[in-house]
Amino acid sequence: MTRLAVADDSLFGLANLPYGAYSVPGAEPRIGTRYGDHVVDLALLLDDHVFARPTLNAFMAQGHDRWVAVRERLVEAVAGDVPDRAVHPAGAVTLHLPFEVADYVDFYASEHHASNLGRLFRPDSPEPLLPNWKHLPVGYHGRSASIVVSGTDIVRPAGQRKNPQDPAPLFGPSTKLDIEAELGFVVGTGNPMGEPIPVEDAEHHIFGVVLFNDWSARDIQAWEYVPLGPNLGKSFASTVSPWVVPLLALGPARVPTPTQEPAVLPYLALEEPWGLEIDVEVEWNGEVVSRPPYASMYWSPAQMLAHLTVNGAPTRTGDLFASGTISGPERDQRGAFIELTWGGREPVTVAGAQRTFLEDGDEVVLRASAPGSGGARIGFGEARGRILASKFIGTEG
Amino acid sequence: MTRLAVADDSLFGLANLPYGAYSVPGAEPRIGTRYGDHVVDLALLLDDHVFARPTLNAFMAQGHDRWVAVRERLVEAVAGDVPDRAVHPAGAVTLHLPFEVADYVDFYASEHHASNLGRLFRPDSPEPLLPNWKHLPVGYHGRSASIVVSGTDIVRPAGQRKNPQDPAPLFGPSTKLDIEAELGFVVGTGNPMGEPIPVEDAEHHIFGVVLFNDWSARDIQAWEYVPLGPNLGKSFASTVSPWVVPLLALGPARVPTPTQEPAVLPYLALEEPWGLEIDVEVEWNGEVVSRPPYASMYWSPAQMLAHLTVNGAPTRTGDLFASGTISGPERDQRGAFIELTWGGREPVTVAGAQRTFLEDGDEVVLRASAPGSGGARIGFGEARGRILASKFIGTEG
Repeated sequence: MTRLAVADDSLFGLANLPYGAYSVPGAEPRIGTRYGDHVVDLALLLDDHVFARPTLNAFMAQGHDRWVAVRERLVEAVAGDVPDRAVHPAGAVTLHLPFEVADYVDFYASEHHASNLGRLFRPDSPEPLLPNWKHLPVGYHGRSASIVVSGTDIVRPAGQRKNPQDPAPLFGPSTKLDIEAELGFVVGTGNPMGEPIPVEDAEHHIFGVVLFNDWSARDIQAWEYVPLGPNLGKSFASTVSPWVVPLLALGPARVPTPTQEPAVLPYLALEEPWGLEIDVEVEWNGEVVSRPPYASMYWSPAQMLAHLTVNGAPTRTGDLFASGTISGPERDQRGAFIELTWGGREPVTVAGAQRTFLEDGDEVVLRASAPGSGGARIGFGEARGRILASKFIGTEG
Repeated sequence: MTRLAVADDSLFGLANLPYGAYSVPGAEPRIGTRYGDHVVDLALLLDDHVFARPTLNAFMAQGHDRWVAVRERLVEAVAGDVPDRAVHPAGAVTLHLPFEVADYVDFYASEHHASNLGRLFRPDSPEPLLPNWKHLPVGYHGRSASIVVSGTDIVRPAGQRKNPQDPAPLFGPSTKLDIEAELGFVVGTGNPMGEPIPVEDAEHHIFGVVLFNDWSARDIQAWEYVPLGPNLGKSFASTVSPWVVPLLALGPARVPTPTQEPAVLPYLALEEPWGLEIDVEVEWNGEVVSRPPYASMYWSPAQMLAHLTVNGAPTRTGDLFASGTISGPERDQRGAFIELTWGGREPVTVAGAQRTFLEDGDEVVLRASAPGSGGARIGFGEARGRILASKFIGTEG
């Protein structure tokens, strides 16, 4: 047995205790928690077989009461005598995608992001936001199969693009590869078809929160997206952080969302504060270039889930819905490079170089932290990805 | 042992032999084929355990060579002496969703449909098609969890809608509930991330074909869909037929697609004919109101799959991609009621009544047939759904 020591300022103290899937060489992935600098096996620590599996889905499906009960046991158990064979140094394990993704939806919940993109894409319009934007959380479905865990390399996608002056589309590797710094919300238990989740019940369905980088090929997206929305410009890859921070840990981070004016329809009206004071940072080739504040998001995750299901659509254990790019009001709070560099026209200095979109070999890391219980701060780990060259050769000169 | 008799004009003769999931009372679903008026259990008939499962996914994952070999064995075995306990009258079994749906994408591949919707939604534009339409098969991801098998009732969805003259959106049951008559293509084996499926390899990946009704709430869709595409207007339900017709059965149905002009980019260029002469019919409350011809579709399923993956996006066993509404050049070949009734302004007579969109209690059935080997015709069964009233009361007067 071991007593694990954790520094007072650790982002992975008792206030956090996130869930993830880890493996050691020669063994299948199992569920663990991160505690200080260690990964602790939960099946061994808690003597609970639901954690002797490669993903969190079975545990999440047990529902909110179990999440509460297990967290209470976990806080006690991990601070006590821990079986030696349950403990691994964090650097000695491989981390995996922590849950099997069912349906994936990406929202567009930041007013600053939506307004910036409106100004960039519709410069002649007097209103940067479209008429529906303040009435419903706009979102679209994406590809679950291409959601990968932090550390997975991202191959530059190829596809069609067409500038207005080109007579026909060109095919080749994207020349406007971008990031979108987001949070992702993991559905622990869903709803049957025909039974919407009321906004006030959302916290019984949302299991936890991950970092999410929705890699985006802006040139492919711009050509394809009318009238049915983004597809190939997004579907090649999205990166999630390996630790799912339980919503139960984020009580101290709950803050009111910005005032919603005009008032939303009753099915979207919040009684509880559902904003989240989570501070995100975007590191590009080792340099922090942006600090998007999640607290600035207009639409809350509870509203997103209520909206997703109000038409009777079912959700399932493992559904993931992401916030859309987090951008604050200031330039250095923008969560996508298309905004940060204003469409590529205002380069930023990154490690001494003038940069706009992603080049091969670039690496982007998202990190975040939030207030936790007892004055602690809790961390979200990281969502890291490096750009590899496309195998395709462009058709353009 | 039994010799099964099948009428010469059966749509389920030796030329067809589709795969489905059936159950008898008290037993779990298993895989069977439909042969004449019987359902034949494949695990028992072929002594192959991969069919003693509730979905086709395990068999599909075995790959194209196995699909060919099993079909050869099946043709021989089902026409010979069949074990009695493998045989059930078709009317005595329950049919289930035949595969577990991984990612689902809906395309927009009919030029007539896209042109009709362009004229309806953008009446002032001189060009009904958007600039990208003839260069790439436009499509978007949808919700896998709400794909249901034929016979499942469809609850009218509620949601937001807003007419231009309304000061704010209203919430309530959809008043413009519609169908979309489509075909769905089932991916048997997918591609790893970063390795696109070339258009000429598509037939090694596509396992089979189903009927697909993409129920659509036009009022919800019209308000929500800019700029990220349809979401709640579609995500409440889509209906598939229970029998997956193998692509291997559809060789005699292969015809050239309509001429594609301007020429497509090389990754979409077809050498083999990839159109499908499949005749669909739409029955509304017992009356056939439309006969959409699949052969008129501009984009082929091989092009859809090549496009879906050209950016490196992975596909998986159980992925489903649907064609989008099938509409031919004539009014009575239109596969959606919004086209058939020209936005509701030109009602059609259905069972003696003047009708535009779907009312509670309406039932829609899609059926289809195609030429099979030896001069036979092969059937697709049906995709049937009945509209139930919403539990919500509208906010409008």
